[in-house]
Formats: sequence, C-alpha cells, structure tokens
Amino acid sequence: MAAPNDGVVEEPRRSVDEHARRIEALLADIALRSETVPLERARGRVTAAPVLSPVDLPLFRNSQMDGFALSSSDLVSVPVTLTIGETIAAAPTSPSPLARGTASRIMTGAVVPEGADCVVPVEHTRVEGDRLTVLVARSAGDYVREPGSDVRTGARILSEGTVLAPRHLAALAASGLTEVSVLSRIRVAVISSGAELVAPGQTPAPGQVFDANTIALASASREAGAEIALIARTSDDHAAFRAALDEAVRTADLVITSGGVSKGDFEVVRDVLEPLGADVAEVAMQPGGPQATTTVEGVPVVSFPGNPVSAQVSFAVFLRPVLRRLSGLPAIVNEVRTLTDEAVSVPNRRQWLRAERLPGGRVRVVSGPSSHLVATMAAADALLDVPENVTRLHVGDAIEVVPL
Amino acid sequence: MAAPNDGVVEEPRRSVDEHARRIEALLADIALRSETVPLERARGRVTAAPVLSPVDLPLFRNSQMDGFALSSSDLVSVPVTLTIGETIAAAPTSPSPLARGTASRIMTGAVVPEGADCVVPVEHTRVEGDRLTVLVARSAGDYVREPGSDVRTGARILSEGTVLAPRHLAALAASGLTEVSVLSRIRVAVISSGAELVAPGQTPAPGQVFDANTIALASASREAGAEIALIARTSDDHAAFRAALDEAVRTADLVITSGGVSKGDFEVVRDVLEPLGADVAEVAMQPGGPQATTTVEGVPVVSFPGNPVSAQVSFAVFLRPVLRRLSGLPAIVNEVRTLTDEAVSVPNRRQWLRAERLPGGRVRVVSGPSSHLVATMAAADALLDVPENVTRLHVGDAIEVVPL
Repeated sequence: MAAPNDGVVEEPRRSVDEHARRIEALLADIALRSETVPLERARGRVTAAPVLSPVDLPLFRNSQMDGFALSSSDLVSVPVTLTIGETIAAAPTSPSPLARGTASRIMTGAVVPEGADCVVPVEHTRVEGDRLTVLVARSAGDYVREPGSDVRTGARILSEGTVLAPRHLAALAASGLTEVSVLSRIRVAVISSGAELVAPGQTPAPGQVFDANTIALASASREAGAEIALIARTSDDHAAFRAALDEAVRTADLVITSGGVSKGDFEVVRDVLEPLGADVAEVAMQPGGPQATTTVEGVPVVSFPGNPVSAQVSFAVFLRPVLRRLSGLPAIVNEVRTLTDEAVSVPNRRQWLRAERLPGGRVRVVSGPSSHLVATMAAADALLDVPENVTRLHVGDAIEVVPL
Repeated sequence: MAAPNDGVVEEPRRSVDEHARRIEALLADIALRSETVPLERARGRVTAAPVLSPVDLPLFRNSQMDGFALSSSDLVSVPVTLTIGETIAAAPTSPSPLARGTASRIMTGAVVPEGADCVVPVEHTRVEGDRLTVLVARSAGDYVREPGSDVRTGARILSEGTVLAPRHLAALAASGLTEVSVLSRIRVAVISSGAELVAPGQTPAPGQVFDANTIALASASREAGAEIALIARTSDDHAAFRAALDEAVRTADLVITSGGVSKGDFEVVRDVLEPLGADVAEVAMQPGGPQATTTVEGVPVVSFPGNPVSAQVSFAVFLRPVLRRLSGLPAIVNEVRTLTDEAVSVPNRRQWLRAERLPGGRVRVVSGPSSHLVATMAAADALLDVPENVTRLHVGDAIEVVPL
C-alpha cells in the first residue's frame, strides 16, 4: 500500500453529491405500483393509500367491565336493590330490552341491552340470589363503550405511507379488513461481472475469487425495501453480459451492476454500456471511484466498481437513500460522533472509512481504507464520512457517520 | 367511562415487575436450537456460533490497481524503462514468473506474478509499444494485497450473536461460504379465545367483533424474532380450547393465549388452565390487568386478556423483551421524553398510555386509556410508562417511554 498521490496530475473527478443527484434523477422515472396483500404478509410493507374504516368501532354498544347493565335512572339513591334478569355474554346474542327495576348480568365486551345506559362493575355490587344491591351511584354512559367511539365508518385508520407494524395490522383486522393496499416492491436485478468471480461453494481456479457482491447488493436492496427480480453472475464476455442485461431490463425496475466499469483492459460493463449512452464518471470518493449510470430500454442501470467494499459503500451512499425513499421506508439518519482514534485520508477524495459506533456518541475506525477488506468490513456498523479536503483526523474530532 | 376506584376496597394486585420476572423465568426453559440456512435467506437471522474463515482473504497476492507488476529492485532510479511482458487479467490464470527488467501489465485483483513485489499504477507510467517508463519510485509491497491481509484461515469473521446484515453476508460469501448456522426461531402458537370473535372478512352476528388479537400477537411475535407454529381461534367451549391447546403444546415452544382469563362467567382460558396449575394474577396495570402463566406438557403458556389493546400492551411489556433476548435481537431501549400535554392516570396501577414520539425529545398522548381503542392505538408509536403512584401528569414532565 502507498499514498495514491505523488504529484502526478489527476483528471478532474465528479463530486459525490453530483453523482448522487444524477442517480436520484435517474431513479425518479421508476413507476411506483401498488398491490393488495393479506394482513398476514403485510408487516413491514408500506400503505399505498389512506385506509378508511368500513365500520364503526366498536361495532355496537358494549360493556367495558364484567358487571351489571342497568338504567342510571334506577340509581337515584344508593344502595338500591334490583332484580337480576338475563345474563349477557360476550358472544353472538341479541339481548332483550331491559325492564325498569331490573339489571342484566353482563360480561366485558357484551352487548348493552336497550333500556340500559350504564354498567356497574361487579365489585361495586352485592348479589343475593336474583337480587342485586348496587353500592355505588353511576351515571348514564359509565363503563359503556359507544359504537364509533374508537373510529367511525369512513374515518381514516391509517395514513398513506404507514410502515405496517403489528398495531396497524390489529387496527385493520379489528375493522374487519383482511388485506391492505401497499406499495409494490421495486424490482431490482443484480448483475455481478468479472472473469475472476466464482460462486461461493465452488472451487476457485488460480486467480479467481469468491463473488461477494451478488449477495451484498441483493440483500442490501431487500433491506432497502426492494425485491430481487433477477440475479446474474457473468464473465468478462460481452455477449454474456449483454444477455444478462437484456433479461434484467425486461424483468426489473432497476439494474445494479458491479465490476467492469474502470479503466483496465477488460471492462465489460463499460464496454457494453458506453455505446448505449452510459454516463461513466470517476467520482471523487474512496472506496468507489469508478461509477456509471445508463438507461437501457427505459430502465435505469446503476454501475458500481467490483471491489466488494467499493460496491457496498457505493450502494450505501448512492442507492440506499433513494430506494428507501421510493419504498416509503424511513431515511437512515446520519449521526455526528466523536472520533476515538487518529486516521488519515486521501486528499481530493471523500473517503468512507469503515467504523464502529461506540457508547457515549463515540466512533472508532475498524478497517484500513483498502477496498478489498471485505471480511474486515463485517466488523463495521457505520461509515465515517471524511470530507474531500480533510487528510488527517484527530482524537476527539466531531465527524459525520452514516449508520450501516 | 368513570374513575375505576370509588372507595371500594380492591384486592391486592401483583406488580408488573413481579409478573415480568415470572414470565422471564417461565421462558428460560425454552430450549434454543440452531439451524443452517443459505446466505440468501440469512439476512436478519442471528449467528448461533462464531464463524471462522476457511480461507485466507485475499486468496492470493493480487494487485490493488490497474498498472504494471514489477520488481522494486528495478526501480533503484527513476525514470527507468522496462520491457512489457505478458498481460495479467483478473481471471482464472497462472502467470509466468517475471523476468528482471520486465514488467507485466496487470489489472486490479489479478495475480501478482512470482518475481514481482510491487505494482505501479498506470497513471504513474508512460507506455510506448512494449516499452514501459516508470516515472515514480515504488517500494516492495506497494499496491500489492497480500494473502490473509483481510482475514487469515481460521480467524473469526463473525461473532456469535451477530444479527446478519448485508455486510456480514458479503464477508461470508467472500470466504466461500454458502450457508451459516443461526439460532432457530422460537416457535410460537397463538390462540385467541372468545365466543364473540369472528374472523376479519366474515359477517359478525349481533354481539360479535372482529378478531384483532390473532394478527396482533402473531405479527408481534414474528417482529420479536419468533415464527408462528400454529394459529387458532376458539369459542368459549372448553373442549375446543383444550384441543387447540393440546395441538399448540405439541408444535410450539411457547403458547400465547388472549381472552378468557378474567373473572367473568365465561372464562375459558382460566377454566381450562387453572386445573393444569395456572398462576392467575390480577396485575397492577392498565390496560392488561388479568394475566396468567401455565406450563402445559413442559411448554410455557402465557395468557393475556382479550381486549385488543390489553393484549398488545401485555405483549410489549411482558413478552417482547424476553423473546427478543432469546432470539438474539437487540433490546428495545426505553427513552425519557418530555410530555406535551396533561394526562390523568389511575391510582395503584401502572398505566401504559398510548403515545406518539415527537421531534425534540417530546411525546404526546394519542388515545384515551380504554383498552378497546384498537384503531386509535394505530396512531401511537410508543407507550407512556406511568408509575403506579402517579395519577396526574403535567406538561413538561419527563416520562419514560417504551417505543413500539
């Protein structure tokens, strides 16, 4: 390893923010769809529209307590003794109207009969045979749940854009709903390119490495709310990459490629995409300099470099914010933390150092800067965002951190 | 609605903390298992053991840059001109040893040939035909990634208890692994009891309500890391409940029931479980007073009241912390926030008011206290934890909040 700048003149690089804007604009054309899913599969999905209650909740006037339903007009003075009539369970039932001077034994949630306007909890009464003595005065409405007191027919239960948690599903089920309209997941195709790649589990030939980018980009896309429409691993063969690309744009809303976008002799992604109008740029960042975007058959194609750390950092910086926003998921909020160690960074490039967040608002660097340190990156849970013009970080520096 | 205490002597209630301890002890007997899952399905799962790398990473000495591999001993003075030999791609290849005075054109990630000990980036050279002029001096090791410099064979890539994120899956794949040993999900059975319950989507008879507890408790269990082994909805019929219970304890590690645990006339859960040794308690909380725990055929059975808000609050207070811990998921950390409004609470009971967290560390109450307000609860994202001895909350009070 060596300092990557020795007075050799470098070509101008695009800023991270500028490339991020281009990717955001590219993805703005993705048509968002909605679909209806059963509540059992809706947790974590995002409502595509407000949900209105089809019913009053409660559905009917019911008791808040186990006790006795009666008319408050019978409680003008207490103690008072009434006759116990029917028992009303929380069950399918249509209780008879209550006669004056009588009380119905009633269970929590059971229908309050016509003629009754309050419930006296069982612990505020004394019972002897069919005689009920009420010890505590009650007013109309006491311990009675009125229909619509939770939500009225046509009122909104959920807003558009709600990330569905158990409490939301409970509210929908309580209203009698069995399904909900949610944003469809954005369909992502992941194409990892490179003759050096071999699938994990296979035996690498000399010069080959296990492909980590496919699982990294596919699982990161899922975590950002997308679904995987296609996964492909291709060599440096142009026809093979082109075939994978053609299938990808037929099935996906967004194609993510890794590898083959730099300036070497075997850059399959660049070779195939440049004739299709790719915007290839050297972005002022490390890891992750070589980047490209293309629109192929109307489908955005975002190309990341092939080093596994570069690909993951590129995803976190460029795609995760946009995918989460389009998917209706909350943004990952950057944090400002205090650095616990010294670190150096390259000039003229925004560096994303792999770091671990510590208690007390602190953060420490857990990896060297090199983009091949994929196992080491597993120990990180954040990226230090080191500005382009900063080459040296000190203990105690306040620094922006991107949670992973 | 009325104040639930009018000078009538109440029986002693068990504290929330005491009941929580009993549930924690009950669940401590659940035998945790592990299973092997493919990386594609491992995101969000929790490693059951440390994972050691089966290989050195990088697998072989390779180039960090597109450039020229050569011997630093040829760079004693620069500029120096060498002969360009073979081209080494990042591909399956076994390059020939490098002869002194020559350089191999090399791509990022390609095998550095024997005889070479550094790489000169292409931008620090000048090429004319097969003649390479190196402009910048380099030392042995520059731009060369050594085998094992990321991780060595047998070194730990992941700790036990890692919640698998994309970066972890990338590290496993980079090491050639295709699967990982994770904690098996705790198998939960959910039994919702009550003659008044009808499945959402059906037409309720008079006196019936839509069952919200099944989806609430099943989805909350999944969110806490469990999987659903069985779902049942039973009437107040003892045989039906007993049959569901028997099937549940055959298939699940934990049974959660809702309803039928209070003191009414039709308390199926209580009636069936008390003869099996249930610990039935009135817990000093609102919502959620009537609670029970039982061990049936060695399987813990946790019984919550049937009001849908009571059931959800009971889950958040009693089961979520234990299930998450057993599942290896991070604890939900309570927050202290500033109340934006007045609120009242009942004496002698710990009340969990449904609330919404606001920016600036504030929190507001979004629902009345009644346990039937299931639609209203959807607007909450936290529970205010109002201590037993507090009956009145004021604007600006600092109060503990349980995030939902």
